[in-house]
Amino acid sequence: MPVAALLPRPSRRSGGTTRSPVRDLLALTENPDVISFAGGLPAPELFDLDGLRRSFDAALRAPAGLQYSTSEGNPALREFIADRYTAHGLTTTRDEILVTTGSQQALSLLATTLLDPGDTVFVERPSYLAALQAFTLAGARIVSVPMVAGGVDLDALGALAEQHRPKLMYTVPTFQNPTGTSLDVANRDGLVALATAHGFRIVEDEPYRELRYSGDPLPYLASFAAEHVVTVGSFSKVLAPGLRLGWIRTRGDIHSTVVVTKQAADLHTSTVDQAAAAHYLTSGGLETALDRIRAAYGERRDAMLAALPDALPAGSSWSTPHGGMFVWAAMPSGYDSTRQLSAAIEHSVAFVPGAPFYAEHPDPATMRLSFTTYEPSTIREGLRRLERSFARS
Amino acid sequence: MPVAALLPRPSRRSGGTTRSPVRDLLALTENPDVISFAGGLPAPELFDLDGLRRSFDAALRAPAGLQYSTSEGNPALREFIADRYTAHGLTTTRDEILVTTGSQQALSLLATTLLDPGDTVFVERPSYLAALQAFTLAGARIVSVPMVAGGVDLDALGALAEQHRPKLMYTVPTFQNPTGTSLDVANRDGLVALATAHGFRIVEDEPYRELRYSGDPLPYLASFAAEHVVTVGSFSKVLAPGLRLGWIRTRGDIHSTVVVTKQAADLHTSTVDQAAAAHYLTSGGLETALDRIRAAYGERRDAMLAALPDALPAGSSWSTPHGGMFVWAAMPSGYDSTRQLSAAIEHSVAFVPGAPFYAEHPDPATMRLSFTTYEPSTIREGLRRLERSFARS
Repeated sequence: MPVAALLPRPSRRSGGTTRSPVRDLLALTENPDVISFAGGLPAPELFDLDGLRRSFDAALRAPAGLQYSTSEGNPALREFIADRYTAHGLTTTRDEILVTTGSQQALSLLATTLLDPGDTVFVERPSYLAALQAFTLAGARIVSVPMVAGGVDLDALGALAEQHRPKLMYTVPTFQNPTGTSLDVANRDGLVALATAHGFRIVEDEPYRELRYSGDPLPYLASFAAEHVVTVGSFSKVLAPGLRLGWIRTRGDIHSTVVVTKQAADLHTSTVDQAAAAHYLTSGGLETALDRIRAAYGERRDAMLAALPDALPAGSSWSTPHGGMFVWAAMPSGYDSTRQLSAAIEHSVAFVPGAPFYAEHPDPATMRLSFTTYEPSTIREGLRRLERSFARS
Repeated sequence: MPVAALLPRPSRRSGGTTRSPVRDLLALTENPDVISFAGGLPAPELFDLDGLRRSFDAALRAPAGLQYSTSEGNPALREFIADRYTAHGLTTTRDEILVTTGSQQALSLLATTLLDPGDTVFVERPSYLAALQAFTLAGARIVSVPMVAGGVDLDALGALAEQHRPKLMYTVPTFQNPTGTSLDVANRDGLVALATAHGFRIVEDEPYRELRYSGDPLPYLASFAAEHVVTVGSFSKVLAPGLRLGWIRTRGDIHSTVVVTKQAADLHTSTVDQAAAAHYLTSGGLETALDRIRAAYGERRDAMLAALPDALPAGSSWSTPHGGMFVWAAMPSGYDSTRQLSAAIEHSVAFVPGAPFYAEHPDPATMRLSFTTYEPSTIREGLRRLERSFARS
């Protein structure tokens, strides 16, 4: 009998997750000849490399920058995050902030803290892939809620809540990944009212909020009903993703429970990365960095939106996001974007098929295009290649 | 009706964990008048602050140091770790290494990957607190195995394995936290033989292995039966804990499953911390750092062992560790170390009571003393204070 026969199998829950197709697709972008709209990466040439290097240098002037620290996170960093919420209309204290190892960990900790196996989680249709992974790993049942103009289909949500009695709904309310769309004010109000009426929590994930290129700021869901909404944030898209710095804004029993969960997950987030970020942010680096990023990404978004009409087949539609990193396109029914991707790669251009972003009922004619990592001229060239890939197929 | 009544409660599993008493005790060490043997911190004055600052500077010379990276971890760092195992007698390839956000995350990922709720985990009696937390959060039943001279009580382990059919056994085989003791070679062999016979896995956690001050190196458990043993390592005690860099050495289906779990947990560990560590290690910094740490800690261990006979009540016994950070002491039965801690703090000295380290059957007369963070003269003064606290109580 082979040795392996006497070894226990991995846990059932871990068998329920698979590698993220988006991350596996990143392999495609390694060929420099391919213009890839597939990734979800920030543009590296916009990182403030010199500013951050100076802040790491400052953080490493004393041994405390290398020592164990508290699970809650660096006090100055938490204070900065809280003050920024308050300045943006959502009164927040430092004690409501827990620093996490990127916002992916925030989702993972909330899944562990809020969900028992078999509990139901509502997500948008489509939704962010890695969130689906975190909820699946927690043993949750995932039910997707249809979207309409302006946000979540509230009538459908009410009926689904009656039927499934969810523990929580996960939403990316502003410049969503993958669609680039936002919930309007009335939709936010209505969504929170349903959460209050049906007794479920909302996790609002806001990694893109600061990347606005047009239109007016929208209120946080937490500003409608603080007790029902947990807000998740991230420095990945505004400073740099490699620092793995995100956070959870919450209070009361959820806050103290999630701190214990954080302690079991990794004790605390990197002391030096937190100290360097706190130094950078409290030195006033963020606004300059954001101005530069917004200006560049806004131009890139405009270039993509201007070139899409020629690139996609007649009868296609797409989102026109006021911010974020993504445009979501739907080709006429009958098209299959996964099949189309092969033709696109032959023309040295790539995108992400939309199907994996659906927890259920995938629409095979959809695709996600990121506009962040190329200059406008390269975006136009990429979309000309995409156009040619359709002509050929 | 108050709003909270309509809110779902936190998950059942998260209610099963509590804050680590050791971490809460760290609050005691903030008063500089207290000589605290309670912590588990490395000595900050031994960090190579200048060397690591130079390595961070090098890691931040290109934007790649700030970008998203792979879940598996920095290739050069994984190569260094694998080569070091091979040099120490355990042949290892880079593909068997997954970088984690500290070894606490390694334990958390393995708990998720290997355990379903209700599965049984064996631990040493006593064992490492934060590991107990990670297993509890995964919904595991924890059963503790008695210890004897030389290691685990193998007869007891065999009988318990028949009775409980565990999925895995967790062990810190070298300079254990909290006892400072090690499993000898015969005990390692016997432990792995039982795992093979009863079909359970072993997780060997080796954060202290490189901190040896006397005696000969012991073989890795994985060198007896690679398929049954997952090895966990950490740079926290040899470089700096604030970097949060640990790893898992495993292979086959467990390796690929744990990579997916890692992706859902935090996508990947800090890009810049990994790149800086890889630069530091491949530049040859480790041996110099280890020589300095070993020389200092060895002296401090000797100082503590020399002063303990006078400090503790007649009839006490204690471990004489060949390495690591801790001495474990047992007072005569009838003493209660938690009660004694109050008297000690009045004399401005602290230790950790032993009871919380027991998953079951706590021995209230035990205590853990860390010898790493003070010079020998301060250790002697602290133990004189401890002696006086006994005289008074």
